[in-house]
Amino acid sequence: MKGSGRISYTLRELAERFGGEVVGDPATRVHQVATLEHAGAGTLAFLANARYLPQLAHTGASAVLLAPSMRDATALPRIVCEDPYVHFARVSTLFNPPRAAVPGVHPSAFVDTTARVAPDAEIGPHAVVGKEASVGSGSVVGAGCTLGERVRIGAHTRLHARVTVYDDCVLGNRVVVHSGVVIGADGFGLAMAEGRWIKIPQIGRVVIGDDVEIGANTTIDRGAIDDTVIEEGVKLDNQIQIAHNVRIGAHTAIAACVGIAGSTRIGRHCRIGGAAGLAGHITIADGVEISGYTAVTKSIDKPGVYSGLYPFEANREWRRNAVHLRHLADLAERLRSLEKRFEALGRSKA
Amino acid sequence: MKGSGRISYTLRELAERFGGEVVGDPATRVHQVATLEHAGAGTLAFLANARYLPQLAHTGASAVLLAPSMRDATALPRIVCEDPYVHFARVSTLFNPPRAAVPGVHPSAFVDTTARVAPDAEIGPHAVVGKEASVGSGSVVGAGCTLGERVRIGAHTRLHARVTVYDDCVLGNRVVVHSGVVIGADGFGLAMAEGRWIKIPQIGRVVIGDDVEIGANTTIDRGAIDDTVIEEGVKLDNQIQIAHNVRIGAHTAIAACVGIAGSTRIGRHCRIGGAAGLAGHITIADGVEISGYTAVTKSIDKPGVYSGLYPFEANREWRRNAVHLRHLADLAERLRSLEKRFEALGRSKA
Amino acid sequence: MKGSGRISYTLRELAERFGGEVVGDPATRVHQVATLEHAGAGTLAFLANARYLPQLAHTGASAVLLAPSMRDATALPRIVCEDPYVHFARVSTLFNPPRAAVPGVHPSAFVDTTARVAPDAEIGPHAVVGKEASVGSGSVVGAGCTLGERVRIGAHTRLHARVTVYDDCVLGNRVVVHSGVVIGADGFGLAMAEGRWIKIPQIGRVVIGDDVEIGANTTIDRGAIDDTVIEEGVKLDNQIQIAHNVRIGAHTAIAACVGIAGSTRIGRHCRIGGAAGLAGHITIADGVEISGYTAVTKSIDKPGVYSGLYPFEANREWRRNAVHLRHLADLAERLRSLEKRFEALGRSKA
Repeated sequence: MKGSGRISYTLRELAERFGGEVVGDPATRVHQVATLEHAGAGTLAFLANARYLPQLAHTGASAVLLAPSMRDATALPRIVCEDPYVHFARVSTLFNPPRAAVPGVHPSAFVDTTARVAPDAEIGPHAVVGKEASVGSGSVVGAGCTLGERVRIGAHTRLHARVTVYDDCVLGNRVVVHSGVVIGADGFGLAMAEGRWIKIPQIGRVVIGDDVEIGANTTIDRGAIDDTVIEEGVKLDNQIQIAHNVRIGAHTAIAACVGIAGSTRIGRHCRIGGAAGLAGHITIADGVEISGYTAVTKSIDKPGVYSGLYPFEANREWRRNAVHLRHLADLAERLRSLEKRFEALGRSKA
Repeated sequence: MKGSGRISYTLRELAERFGGEVVGDPATRVHQVATLEHAGAGTLAFLANARYLPQLAHTGASAVLLAPSMRDATALPRIVCEDPYVHFARVSTLFNPPRAAVPGVHPSAFVDTTARVAPDAEIGPHAVVGKEASVGSGSVVGAGCTLGERVRIGAHTRLHARVTVYDDCVLGNRVVVHSGVVIGADGFGLAMAEGRWIKIPQIGRVVIGDDVEIGANTTIDRGAIDDTVIEEGVKLDNQIQIAHNVRIGAHTAIAACVGIAGSTRIGRHCRIGGAAGLAGHITIADGVEISGYTAVTKSIDKPGVYSGLYPFEANREWRRNAVHLRHLADLAERLRSLEKRFEALGRSKA
Repeated sequence: MKGSGRISYTLRELAERFGGEVVGDPATRVHQVATLEHAGAGTLAFLANARYLPQLAHTGASAVLLAPSMRDATALPRIVCEDPYVHFARVSTLFNPPRAAVPGVHPSAFVDTTARVAPDAEIGPHAVVGKEASVGSGSVVGAGCTLGERVRIGAHTRLHARVTVYDDCVLGNRVVVHSGVVIGADGFGLAMAEGRWIKIPQIGRVVIGDDVEIGANTTIDRGAIDDTVIEEGVKLDNQIQIAHNVRIGAHTAIAACVGIAGSTRIGRHCRIGGAAGLAGHITIADGVEISGYTAVTKSIDKPGVYSGLYPFEANREWRRNAVHLRHLADLAERLRSLEKRFEALGRSKA
């Protein structure tokens, strides 16, 4: 477990900070969160889903977070609150704060003389900060990161090890970027002339708003001419590919392995499931939810849940069924024909 | 915008270089390209698609590139040419040339004493050039790149930051490789013996031809015994996976997130859409186009467009329909049975 | 070819080490393996698949590995053995052993003073080894790798260039990790409160067993509270995404581009094809095989092969057929209705 909590809080203190009602001894002290199943002494577990109720009886936790409907499901000291998962998130953040920047530039880092690094920012070993780039107050540029020329990084932003930000891209405040992310590589812009591809220079930027988080090995291409834009509060999981000139609306969350093709615009507060794909040049409304493994090939203008996934089966059944997909139009036609003949039969008998 | 154009050209000069007919004042000067929508003074916009015609009326561009059929759609100074998109690509390259190598080895780079680096090549901060590796004239090895032993990089090739090239791999001339790319990692070669996997040493190389471009975080595995080969002019987008012993024919373009399994051979001038997948040990003819999100499970021997994507719908509709995929064979059988009974009925009445 | 074999062996010596019967001159010397097609003098080729039989007649190999059923298919010196592919794997490993560690810490690496590095381990250029991290005997930490605080790397493990291991993660012995891999980035844990996402601190670890191999640019997230676990002997190809709290059973092999969502448990000795996807919170039994491009949305409790892939066709056919997927429920309903009417007809005639 990452950093064992050395600070502890009483349930009373936690309820004062984050709300909820304490039932049982309010002086019960906890120093870390835990799952019901593996909780030990001094930990606070949470019950957010009724299917984990059986684990409640055997948990080793010193206290539990639960919803009003579960109030009497345990005799342990507890905090009863409307949304135990949100409460848990807040308590866990209290116990496990992000590591603060250790101000200074590591001697092995290379910072161009024209770059501006805030005095309380941290530049890790072997990092590179290019010409006229800037790193804001309290931000961390991890080991082996490379910031291109004129890159701007806001305040209290954290780049984990080995992130690349190409020239001219902009990251806001409190952004978190995981290892292997590439921001601002060239979009896939090509013109075909006489049997050969000509590269279109990609001269836009990537602009990333405040409070965005970007998962490991995700790639966000710079705009072809105008910018690629990730609005504030967007959360991106690992290995997502975002093509040039995409715009993602505020507070949208996208699960791993999603690909979004060029110039597509996604609304605010959308949720996109893992390995979904979005075609280029389409628009997705605010509040749309797309299921995992779904390929969205045209615009969606109404909130709601959209899906398109081939159901899996035992291979033998799948083979038996899938072969008919190649004859589905014929099958529909045959049915239509039979219906007509049946109608004709009905009429002839009348 | 990446590098604002300090050089400017008149429309006459551009038409002399790249062809096309100037309509309006040929002395009109432009210094950068722009989209119709966001163009400012001194920029040249282009109209390649009739659906952007409405933007033409309001553009702030000083001049426009358009096709003969649109010749009179604006009063702005303009260059009328057969393929405005190709013309635009050429003008943009003139205004936004790739950054030239800054000759020399950064003091923080580690270049083995047996490596050969051309005097006019650039080796960036924290780069590593292994034993007996070579880097050709005018090439750039970006910050944090790692070149293994005996790697050969041609002339005027550019590796952006944090590219890895394993031992013995070969890159041609004018190749562009984006951040996070891994060239020459071991292919996935395993033999099962007594319940455990035995690794097959991967002793082939990756050989990449001239004028190839490779997008961010794409991976190309070395051959198991013989080589993996990417022929000249191939364009690969981001997060593509190319397994061992694949061969990709010249001038083929592959969009992001595509996976190509081992020993598959793809022809010349193919186009493969995003997130498509190709099974191993198959052959794709020249000039084949594969739609996005399509899994190609057997060889294709004729040019043409091939597709296989489950259409998305509102979740409620999808659930209603998809459940029948598990009974499609039964459904076809029931239809067949009904047809037979109908035939029998017809005969009994005759 | 990676490292030409300078050591050579006779067929007799190879048969003594790895079994099989020598037919022809047992003093025949070979120094490298090769494919039948491209074999040269001094190489040993293998025939594991009858479809390569035609190549046997023309091979330039000095000797061949083949199965008893093929014993007389060539006049070349040969080793006849039950499983030529496994035999070939062993011979190739003899000819192409993994490069041994070159003991020592490269002067450009940064190793924290509290880290423990075995004297015979190798730490490459620009690598970073964090506080209280440890690297075991004979292990290699490649150029540009970053090991976080308290990371533990076992013995004879090899991290190729540019691998990131976050704080507290643990790798066993004889593990191989390819470039661009990220182990231990935060899982995608979010709670929604008042229209904004709150991050759940990810305080579990990643724990990787002995003899695991991990392909280029694969990502394995740390657990939310408990750990993410990859058991011994698991083989992971490139660009796989493994979410928080997944557990993968021993000796399971997973092909490239697979995504596995959070808290899913995969059994032992499973095989998962390329670009397959597994939903979160499901359980897959031991010995399950999942076809490529299949999305597994619920638990599988029996061994066997499972599939779910939309077959591709020429685009024109696909368009004609796929449109009916949106009316499949109606089509089934119409068929049912016709059957009923037909039954009624039968009854009315009786």
